[in-house]
Amino acid sequence: MTPPDQLSYETLTAIEIATAVTDGSMSGKDVINAAQAIIEQREPEVGAWNYLASPQALANAVDENRGEPFAGVPVAIKDILETADMPTANGIVAQEGRKTSQDAAVVHRLRAAGATIVGKTVTTECAFGASGKTTNPHDKTRTPGGSSSGSAASVAAGMVPLAVGSQTAGSIVRPAAYCGVWGMKPSFGVLPRTGMLALAPSFDHPGFFARSAEDLALAFDVTSGDDGVDPAVSGFAGTQLRAALAMPVARPRLAFARTFAWEDMDGDAAQRLEKIAHQLQAEELPLGLEFDIVPEAHRVVLMGEAAHSLKAIYDAGPAGVSQMLRERIESGMLIDRDTYLTAKGQLDTLRSLFRRLLAPFDAIITPATSGEAPVGLAHTGSRNQTMLWSTFGAPAINVPGLTGENGLPLGVQVVGAPGSDGLTLRAAAWVARAIRETAV
Amino acid sequence: MTPPDQLSYETLTAIEIATAVTDGSMSGKDVINAAQAIIEQREPEVGAWNYLASPQALANAVDENRGEPFAGVPVAIKDILETADMPTANGIVAQEGRKTSQDAAVVHRLRAAGATIVGKTVTTECAFGASGKTTNPHDKTRTPGGSSSGSAASVAAGMVPLAVGSQTAGSIVRPAAYCGVWGMKPSFGVLPRTGMLALAPSFDHPGFFARSAEDLALAFDVTSGDDGVDPAVSGFAGTQLRAALAMPVARPRLAFARTFAWEDMDGDAAQRLEKIAHQLQAEELPLGLEFDIVPEAHRVVLMGEAAHSLKAIYDAGPAGVSQMLRERIESGMLIDRDTYLTAKGQLDTLRSLFRRLLAPFDAIITPATSGEAPVGLAHTGSRNQTMLWSTFGAPAINVPGLTGENGLPLGVQVVGAPGSDGLTLRAAAWVARAIRETAV
Repeated sequence: MTPPDQLSYETLTAIEIATAVTDGSMSGKDVINAAQAIIEQREPEVGAWNYLASPQALANAVDENRGEPFAGVPVAIKDILETADMPTANGIVAQEGRKTSQDAAVVHRLRAAGATIVGKTVTTECAFGASGKTTNPHDKTRTPGGSSSGSAASVAAGMVPLAVGSQTAGSIVRPAAYCGVWGMKPSFGVLPRTGMLALAPSFDHPGFFARSAEDLALAFDVTSGDDGVDPAVSGFAGTQLRAALAMPVARPRLAFARTFAWEDMDGDAAQRLEKIAHQLQAEELPLGLEFDIVPEAHRVVLMGEAAHSLKAIYDAGPAGVSQMLRERIESGMLIDRDTYLTAKGQLDTLRSLFRRLLAPFDAIITPATSGEAPVGLAHTGSRNQTMLWSTFGAPAINVPGLTGENGLPLGVQVVGAPGSDGLTLRAAAWVARAIRETAV
Repeated sequence: MTPPDQLSYETLTAIEIATAVTDGSMSGKDVINAAQAIIEQREPEVGAWNYLASPQALANAVDENRGEPFAGVPVAIKDILETADMPTANGIVAQEGRKTSQDAAVVHRLRAAGATIVGKTVTTECAFGASGKTTNPHDKTRTPGGSSSGSAASVAAGMVPLAVGSQTAGSIVRPAAYCGVWGMKPSFGVLPRTGMLALAPSFDHPGFFARSAEDLALAFDVTSGDDGVDPAVSGFAGTQLRAALAMPVARPRLAFARTFAWEDMDGDAAQRLEKIAHQLQAEELPLGLEFDIVPEAHRVVLMGEAAHSLKAIYDAGPAGVSQMLRERIESGMLIDRDTYLTAKGQLDTLRSLFRRLLAPFDAIITPATSGEAPVGLAHTGSRNQTMLWSTFGAPAINVPGLTGENGLPLGVQVVGAPGSDGLTLRAAAWVARAIRETAV
């Protein structure tokens, strides 16, 4: 048996690792050693982790799970999801070292599927406030995107093949695009949020970063469905995304959506997206002026719910939280019930309109971000290209593979109708193949 | 062919009428004439209608639909659902004669299934404020229950075999129980609310009154499912309740729930319910102290949303609306966003707990009301026995057949897990048979 060198680990998918561990061509210890070696090498610059399990703890945790779907696979967890054996700080200094007694539902299910939880990744404060220390693995002067900064960076830097993140506005798709990895926010109600910090429960979605569409499919298939606690998932039996990907390849009926956020696009990124849309024969889908109210309605619901969800953190006082986080919560406190319900009603109406407009198509392609990751770490990027789909609870996937004018990753976002996660992931896999086969 | 006499029409189910119209043993005109005769006879005392189609309009509307599921069946519509050919007053004087251009989704689907819409039934103001003129068909000194007062009374008085109502707290199950007819509020998200007055969108459910479980099943099967507009129904394919009822009869696993509202029960009604529960071998299901917060949380969400939904009616001034309605809206205006979101969060948590507690059972039996319909028309009864299930979006059915100490109808409420409408209706049909076969 050839022991895997560092390079091979960096490029293996989660499924490849689990297969190798199960058939004995790699041991769980080999895998963890490779992960630790890369983390040791890249972490000083990338800063993906807020907490790392000790080598001893990892040695004890691995290699017990041959045959499980994620046997021996190292996984990173955004630090707003609770872990029984590691602290959960929610990205705020005030909660450093905070112990909780149980695993979040998604973490529990990952472990049951054989995964080894390596550590907790950097998030912006409460997935909402000031940025953390993480840099973009492709260029340390640039943001990795956020709020799931460390989860995206840990996959992009080759430290782990799979990471859990969460998205309320754009916190999975944006960092996946900036870091050049696969990222998927599923439909609302696919993954249980039990044990995950509530920010804006109307929009909060856990999701994954990975190196392949197949890894995303497996990750959702083993973690999705009713957990008896989160009412959003009540009665949902779970996804069958592997089965969807295994169906014969067929050209999806693609739409190309330039939303109200198209005006934010960098010129070069806009040109590349338009070229891809043309090559993929995507049909222009106008999302009319009705949708122009979404940014404000999204802001009202997000801020209003966040001020409620984070009230205890605010009431604990200014020590160990940023002024930015406090000001955002204060801005939410100003939103009254009537304004909140107006915004909810507007979004409900538009969600139905969106479904009707999307009906003739399998999926939409649209920008994941307005361009490559910007220089600077203070801001993790705009929500404008992603917030619409989060608002609608639609599945949204960053497909990596394009490169922008500065040689940094550029994402194509593939979006589907709420509930059609399988169709959307199939379309995304098709788009990825088309990008690979096309010189752009 | 024997023309149906008035008595036979009064006792026929919707399915029996549709079958007779389809096979030619009754004409649509015979049916409508019979309906008009009973309405003429009973309406002066019962007062079920706010608007009745003219004989000419009805003559034009009927007998065109042989073979349709509700061929020639006269149906009543609660006057908060829009009808293109009749005014919709929402129970308020200020909107008497208000014309709308389209049928509500449920009305549209009923017409497509062959039904003849006879008229619009009395509702409390906006299903929320002061009572209307309707009396209990069993005793004109007593309330028919509300808010769907006229819909329940029209079925109980034999005027129509099927009526549309709506429930936000108890507005279907309560009047069905007081009037001694079948009534069903389905799971949240089964029937589209498009074209129905919004009161508290988190809890608003359309539903039906009927003379049999089979009629309820057919009514939901032809009107349920995604209409492309109401986001609550998005992606729902529709019920298959007839198929559920057609499955072989089996004793359901029944629970008996005495909620926080058990203390409101009349002594005699309590004894009868306990006796039935014992005879049905229902197992006591304690809904613990956690559920004691539901009345207040329900009030906060209902009032908070109603103040938003009815803002335009309030802002139009005091002419043509009751002081009671205005005061209720004003009370909702006092609810702030944080209080509202706290209540929503509490109810979400309890909804999941309810599902877990219910998991070992097919359905719950519980009182539909605290006793027989009270004397007096000013109040339509308490929400306490029904509001819990409305809050949880659970299917809730009034099973008629029991009689109280004054000879008036007493209902048994059968409740299931959200989404299990078929199982719940099957259990209700089983309970109805058991009641018929048992001397209580």
